[in-house]
Amino acid sequence: MSNEQILKNTNAKLLNEFNASILFDKELYTQDIKASLAHSFMLSKENIISKEEYLQIKDALEQIQKEIQEENFVFSLEHEDIHMAIENRLTVIIGETGKKLHTARSRNDQVVCDFTLYVQEKSLDIQVLLKNLISTFVNMASKHIDTLMPGMTHLQHAQVLNFGYHLLTYANMFKRDYERFQSSYERNNFSPLGSAALAGTPHKINRNTTSEMLNFNAPSSHAMDSVSNRDFALEILFNIATAMMHVSRISEELIMWSSYEFQFIKLSDEYSTTSSIMPQKKNPDVPELLRGKTGRVYGNLFSLFTVMKALPLAYNKDTQEDKEGVFDSVKTINISLKILNEIINTMEVNKNNMANACKVGHLSATDLADYLVDKKNIAFRDAYYITKDVVKYANTLNKDISELNLKELQEASKDLKDIEEEVIMHLDLKTSMNSRTSKGGASTQNTKEQIEEFQKWLNKI
Amino acid sequence: MSNEQILKNTNAKLLNEFNASILFDKELYTQDIKASLAHSFMLSKENIISKEEYLQIKDALEQIQKEIQEENFVFSLEHEDIHMAIENRLTVIIGETGKKLHTARSRNDQVVCDFTLYVQEKSLDIQVLLKNLISTFVNMASKHIDTLMPGMTHLQHAQVLNFGYHLLTYANMFKRDYERFQSSYERNNFSPLGSAALAGTPHKINRNTTSEMLNFNAPSSHAMDSVSNRDFALEILFNIATAMMHVSRISEELIMWSSYEFQFIKLSDEYSTTSSIMPQKKNPDVPELLRGKTGRVYGNLFSLFTVMKALPLAYNKDTQEDKEGVFDSVKTINISLKILNEIINTMEVNKNNMANACKVGHLSATDLADYLVDKKNIAFRDAYYITKDVVKYANTLNKDISELNLKELQEASKDLKDIEEEVIMHLDLKTSMNSRTSKGGASTQNTKEQIEEFQKWLNKI
Amino acid sequence: MSNEQILKNTNAKLLNEFNASILFDKELYTQDIKASLAHSFMLSKENIISKEEYLQIKDALEQIQKEIQEENFVFSLEHEDIHMAIENRLTVIIGETGKKLHTARSRNDQVVCDFTLYVQEKSLDIQVLLKNLISTFVNMASKHIDTLMPGMTHLQHAQVLNFGYHLLTYANMFKRDYERFQSSYERNNFSPLGSAALAGTPHKINRNTTSEMLNFNAPSSHAMDSVSNRDFALEILFNIATAMMHVSRISEELIMWSSYEFQFIKLSDEYSTTSSIMPQKKNPDVPELLRGKTGRVYGNLFSLFTVMKALPLAYNKDTQEDKEGVFDSVKTINISLKILNEIINTMEVNKNNMANACKVGHLSATDLADYLVDKKNIAFRDAYYITKDVVKYANTLNKDISELNLKELQEASKDLKDIEEEVIMHLDLKTSMNSRTSKGGASTQNTKEQIEEFQKWLNKI
Amino acid sequence: MSNEQILKNTNAKLLNEFNASILFDKELYTQDIKASLAHSFMLSKENIISKEEYLQIKDALEQIQKEIQEENFVFSLEHEDIHMAIENRLTVIIGETGKKLHTARSRNDQVVCDFTLYVQEKSLDIQVLLKNLISTFVNMASKHIDTLMPGMTHLQHAQVLNFGYHLLTYANMFKRDYERFQSSYERNNFSPLGSAALAGTPHKINRNTTSEMLNFNAPSSHAMDSVSNRDFALEILFNIATAMMHVSRISEELIMWSSYEFQFIKLSDEYSTTSSIMPQKKNPDVPELLRGKTGRVYGNLFSLFTVMKALPLAYNKDTQEDKEGVFDSVKTINISLKILNEIINTMEVNKNNMANACKVGHLSATDLADYLVDKKNIAFRDAYYITKDVVKYANTLNKDISELNLKELQEASKDLKDIEEEVIMHLDLKTSMNSRTSKGGASTQNTKEQIEEFQKWLNKI
Repeated sequence: MSNEQILKNTNAKLLNEFNASILFDKELYTQDIKASLAHSFMLSKENIISKEEYLQIKDALEQIQKEIQEENFVFSLEHEDIHMAIENRLTVIIGETGKKLHTARSRNDQVVCDFTLYVQEKSLDIQVLLKNLISTFVNMASKHIDTLMPGMTHLQHAQVLNFGYHLLTYANMFKRDYERFQSSYERNNFSPLGSAALAGTPHKINRNTTSEMLNFNAPSSHAMDSVSNRDFALEILFNIATAMMHVSRISEELIMWSSYEFQFIKLSDEYSTTSSIMPQKKNPDVPELLRGKTGRVYGNLFSLFTVMKALPLAYNKDTQEDKEGVFDSVKTINISLKILNEIINTMEVNKNNMANACKVGHLSATDLADYLVDKKNIAFRDAYYITKDVVKYANTLNKDISELNLKELQEASKDLKDIEEEVIMHLDLKTSMNSRTSKGGASTQNTKEQIEEFQKWLNKI
Repeated sequence: MSNEQILKNTNAKLLNEFNASILFDKELYTQDIKASLAHSFMLSKENIISKEEYLQIKDALEQIQKEIQEENFVFSLEHEDIHMAIENRLTVIIGETGKKLHTARSRNDQVVCDFTLYVQEKSLDIQVLLKNLISTFVNMASKHIDTLMPGMTHLQHAQVLNFGYHLLTYANMFKRDYERFQSSYERNNFSPLGSAALAGTPHKINRNTTSEMLNFNAPSSHAMDSVSNRDFALEILFNIATAMMHVSRISEELIMWSSYEFQFIKLSDEYSTTSSIMPQKKNPDVPELLRGKTGRVYGNLFSLFTVMKALPLAYNKDTQEDKEGVFDSVKTINISLKILNEIINTMEVNKNNMANACKVGHLSATDLADYLVDKKNIAFRDAYYITKDVVKYANTLNKDISELNLKELQEASKDLKDIEEEVIMHLDLKTSMNSRTSKGGASTQNTKEQIEEFQKWLNKI
Repeated sequence: MSNEQILKNTNAKLLNEFNASILFDKELYTQDIKASLAHSFMLSKENIISKEEYLQIKDALEQIQKEIQEENFVFSLEHEDIHMAIENRLTVIIGETGKKLHTARSRNDQVVCDFTLYVQEKSLDIQVLLKNLISTFVNMASKHIDTLMPGMTHLQHAQVLNFGYHLLTYANMFKRDYERFQSSYERNNFSPLGSAALAGTPHKINRNTTSEMLNFNAPSSHAMDSVSNRDFALEILFNIATAMMHVSRISEELIMWSSYEFQFIKLSDEYSTTSSIMPQKKNPDVPELLRGKTGRVYGNLFSLFTVMKALPLAYNKDTQEDKEGVFDSVKTINISLKILNEIINTMEVNKNNMANACKVGHLSATDLADYLVDKKNIAFRDAYYITKDVVKYANTLNKDISELNLKELQEASKDLKDIEEEVIMHLDLKTSMNSRTSKGGASTQNTKEQIEEFQKWLNKI
Repeated sequence: MSNEQILKNTNAKLLNEFNASILFDKELYTQDIKASLAHSFMLSKENIISKEEYLQIKDALEQIQKEIQEENFVFSLEHEDIHMAIENRLTVIIGETGKKLHTARSRNDQVVCDFTLYVQEKSLDIQVLLKNLISTFVNMASKHIDTLMPGMTHLQHAQVLNFGYHLLTYANMFKRDYERFQSSYERNNFSPLGSAALAGTPHKINRNTTSEMLNFNAPSSHAMDSVSNRDFALEILFNIATAMMHVSRISEELIMWSSYEFQFIKLSDEYSTTSSIMPQKKNPDVPELLRGKTGRVYGNLFSLFTVMKALPLAYNKDTQEDKEGVFDSVKTINISLKILNEIINTMEVNKNNMANACKVGHLSATDLADYLVDKKNIAFRDAYYITKDVVKYANTLNKDISELNLKELQEASKDLKDIEEEVIMHLDLKTSMNSRTSKGGASTQNTKEQIEEFQKWLNKI
């Protein structure tokens, strides 16, 4: 049911609208029903309610679940929040027994339990999407271990890489994201249910039962802390913000690579748009939007930090403001990771342009210097200046240093007039790339090994 | 039409949903139609389209306006944004002529024009609400110029005030907010319409005409700047954040004043809620929520700042992310100012408790010291130590310094053994308050004058 | 005196270090002395202290000013803040009279007065820097009104511009910044001095005198508001954040324009750095750092917003946290504007590369369509498709549409087989640019007019 | 050496000051030397330099370490950063050999290695402080398991607690903080050294050797990722922000508890300040400052998020902005945790006032209702209304429900006219508290158990 309809259902005063959270927390209906099922089962197991009462409650809750799913449930602002909406409906269906569901439970622990369940479920969902995305980067990388590309620092050509190696950088970033979600999931997987208003309850409940049924590791250890705590929400907001920051970095690169000036890639037509005025134009709208989405997830994190600052214990209504930002960030990262996955999968790589770009900027200059040091026993500083002369000379020929032939090289510097043919090989771009064999380096061989390690990891998780 | 329905109308792929802005920018339909009316009028005036074409367009736009208002307009994700949705409908209604509306206009200037119109209109609306709120604070203040209250620094009793004076602090804050909205309104009141894609247009348009019709001061002076600029959106987000920060301060005070420990005020039953479990409980939910809302408006400002960072010229799709945050902040401050206004209007002030609180903390201690300096020619440092002795003595009697009689005072310090009756008057709390007569001070007389100045200002604006 | 030395001067406990603000608020010594001079003059004028006492205080304050300037002043953590440090020294120099300076003044109004003075002075300084920067952009623009450049949207070539026109975009941004600083200056130019602790003072002071001496418009109108208010600090932080956001946008462009792929400009050697390893490399470090500085000024704004959230009245020690962020943002924008000014002044523009880039992307495609509509009376939709054919044909020739000759054009589409010579002119890039003559448009003539308007404005302010 | 002196050492142009990081990154000298020692050892082990060269380098680095510690090291802006400063000094001491240290290393991996070392070390330090603080809360809690206190929600009295239980809430918060630092430490404990500029190095280095010597788990797996990655810095900033948010919550409570209205605690004189004007005043400056410090650490987190947004690969100078915020946040949390620890240790708890406060607000009202439900078989709804009558009656007597005697209770409601003596016990506040025995509940017994669990955990870590 849409918010517009809910507002129409209600003879709502401004204050209702201000106070009510139902317009957004109805998103939590599955979690609320799940937690209520567990709670009522436990109540009957501990003889706080009867077996029959439990079964009545169970049937009714399952009916409500169905009603909401099938949009036969009438929401109204008067219910204030999803918890009241469900409880009221329960009482309508099964009468007085419905009211027993709330025994030994308070709105405070109910809310935080539902919200924790939501955050934990979404965290697992995001991990799956991250895994897919990493897999896509790794697959794409495996196709480009020989695709030369100018590696950049400061957006200036620096050293020659293979494009596969470049893509693996992002696989590494998203792997850290994956691990962060995993770690937060484990750290926060405790059941707040049974904390009641702020201090526990005199009823003889068994918190282990509900904790197990809801897939938590254990009941939380302190009631007041449980109803005051929103660390788990801050963590997912931070994890999303960091992952989206990584998304913004690849987006920036995709946009630049798509420009006329770079022309390194061509986005699939689906992920770029044409202009209604200029038939020749193709805009990387989708990566731009991905980049822009960073703003909202950063903002959501800061919002909750602001809300939590200096709140006295235990529950305060301020924390009603914890949900919308989390819902928005979760929705944003879900769609963003799926879209990015498709972009990477469908982009066309212009190998020629990338290779040609490697011939600009004398990317193998340091290889010449290194050769002179290693093979000719020339001090690095002297080698550096000889190389500088060669670069200068190549510029006058309008050639890249990698394009010089032996004769040109011998003419470039008096110190090189007797240099042998062998040196030419070292100026070669592919040789240059493949020389970087230190662990984590950019050679094709290293890239292959890193891909294999990633594949092992992906198979394992 | 609700977003849920729009999504159903559309056989939408994930990408449509990601790209489309119609789910939120439909909020701009009034502004879009208004701008199109002005644009088409100008086109006809400059003979770019015919008078008849203009009238056709006009009638159709007015029909569309009505359709949307009456919810007879079918939105769909395929339209992507509100501008396309309206233009498509226009073409359905009047055929080819509809397509002429977009002559000499681009999506880029159209979007920024609609959004500027929205921001300017909302800015004026917020000013009206601020004026009402200031008026409420001033009225309430006028009823409490004699209501004694302990003025605090560091949440510690410091000097005695009247409650009216305290309330005027907020009137001053919200007055600055009012002025800030006014200033931003004026600084940003320029029409971007006619800037076209990024560089103006070869068509012989007259930007003065549309600017005047849309109540702008003048056309903007640079096309590329106009389509890249979002300063006006940052300004309204900042102005809202600052005003809501002020709201959070009075909310904090309302919450504390409502506690058992303070009991300075009683919120109207409407603005506090009872507990379903504890019949005695009354929670200041509404001020708490007001305080919590600070988070989202801070977050919205930071989101847009993030989006705008390092964007190259001119238009980039990232800026599609500019609207939802502004809509949310505007909605938040609107409802918050209305609600706060009602809270202040309806709260009950517990004068006795405030007055009694003034008797704790020796609020007139400095008045004794001042008296000794002025009338007895005692150096301040000596007067300070004599006063300290008196405070100590009063504590042993379990009295506040303002409650001492002459005899007690004479016994409190050997230096006071001959002190005359006159001094007692200076220890009186009301006398103490009324002694603060420097401009802007807390005396009842000053408070009155400040109220009068406020009333003059309110009548003027 | 450095903080390290101050820490050594003091047998400081951790708590002193935590509490004291002197390590950063010593930056306010000029403002503190200026305000004290005004305050003591007023006290003597109102006969609260004698003329002689005032002269003693004045001489001593001037001596202290000199001592600090010449680094002969011994700071210590024990003084806690700059105000105490100066007052203590005053008492050492002139004895008991020194203590009279604090009559009718509290730390609370003193601090906020000094800080307001600082913010107002720095605001004026920044305006001067902005004026210089605008002037530099305008001058540089005046040299490039004929320099063709591909105007971009979505980082894709869109329409042809002159580089001067592009630069004026930034002049417009920084002009708005200038106006914002001006507006904040005026809105906040009220003297808090005389507000005392929170409620004014019984002393017969004249706040107009100090207000005038300190170049404020008038005394502030409410004591409690004055000591609680930090809006002026939030405003300067916001103004700086917005201006630095603009700096980040030009920086992003400078970095991209300096890449091998663009090669639109060459930064002066001073503003780019070489690599100690790769002799061929030149990095745009300085614009990168400018872009990165956006982070800290955003952070400073949000820090203060966080501090101010939900603070009860009146003064709380939390607000001691208001200064460092402002100092840092002020310092950052000062150096950034100066540096950016030099970068723009000294960069070398590669006109050829920019002009050549205009030949990629069929920038005059819309001009062909427009010509067909206007001169050949072809409906826009048809003209659009004819143009699309021409673009396709040009691509097969590996030419830009602007490079086609009449014969090629006639062959490109059957609908153009009789097209006349005249059309060629319309495909010309310069003609295309100069056709955009709507107000604010990109034609050379418009650009000239905008430059003239800017020069008038610069002369006036 | 202070920054002021460094600036004097240098004939610095503005640009040097802008570019240089030495004014803040000198903080990393220990890490830089440690990493250089490991690197040079590895180089000699792999025969890239000789054993003798290594020993020369080692001796010189140890000398430099001593020089800096003893402030005999002359810093200058011209060195630009700490890495250059040390390398230059090395070359002065041992000549050409010094230059060999930089073999197979780049500034890019050196910087990120030093910074990672810093973050990891500080992370461990903060964990120690958190452990101490938790221990203090637990100890203080163990002294107050019988100290009655009104537990609050919405700042309204809700249910009776013991103060020890309240304090344990914070122990739980800081325990989660501890675990977060631990988790980040482990996730980020990989050595970037050997990543070189962006792609590894052709030199036959052994990254395992340096990794082990620097206490990392393993070398990082991808060079380009390693030099681009700042996730570890974001994580420590987030962990600090969250922990300081917790600090702000206890600070808010300490401030309120210190007010005249609450008088629940008395801060030690050291942690509150007196007024120079009002001898009676005692301000909780220190908790206020703790609360205010939240602002800066939030700001630092968002600064770095802003810097990282949309940065292309690999290294960009923007990331030079990563350090100051981390240094500031680390310094802030260090001092804050120490100070908070002392405040808690030294505060005086006013048990009487807390206990008396429990008698306001009818905290045992629900216990009466529960009794009627359990023992008298009255439906909860009926019991609720009976209790409401009792509350009303108690109010007319100006008594709390816990203070009623049997006769009064019998008179309070016609339904209670035959109620037995036994009920009185259930209204008792201590009984009420001790009834909350569900896991994590507030009873003294539960509190004891939780304290024991904490003590076990503290002994284990």
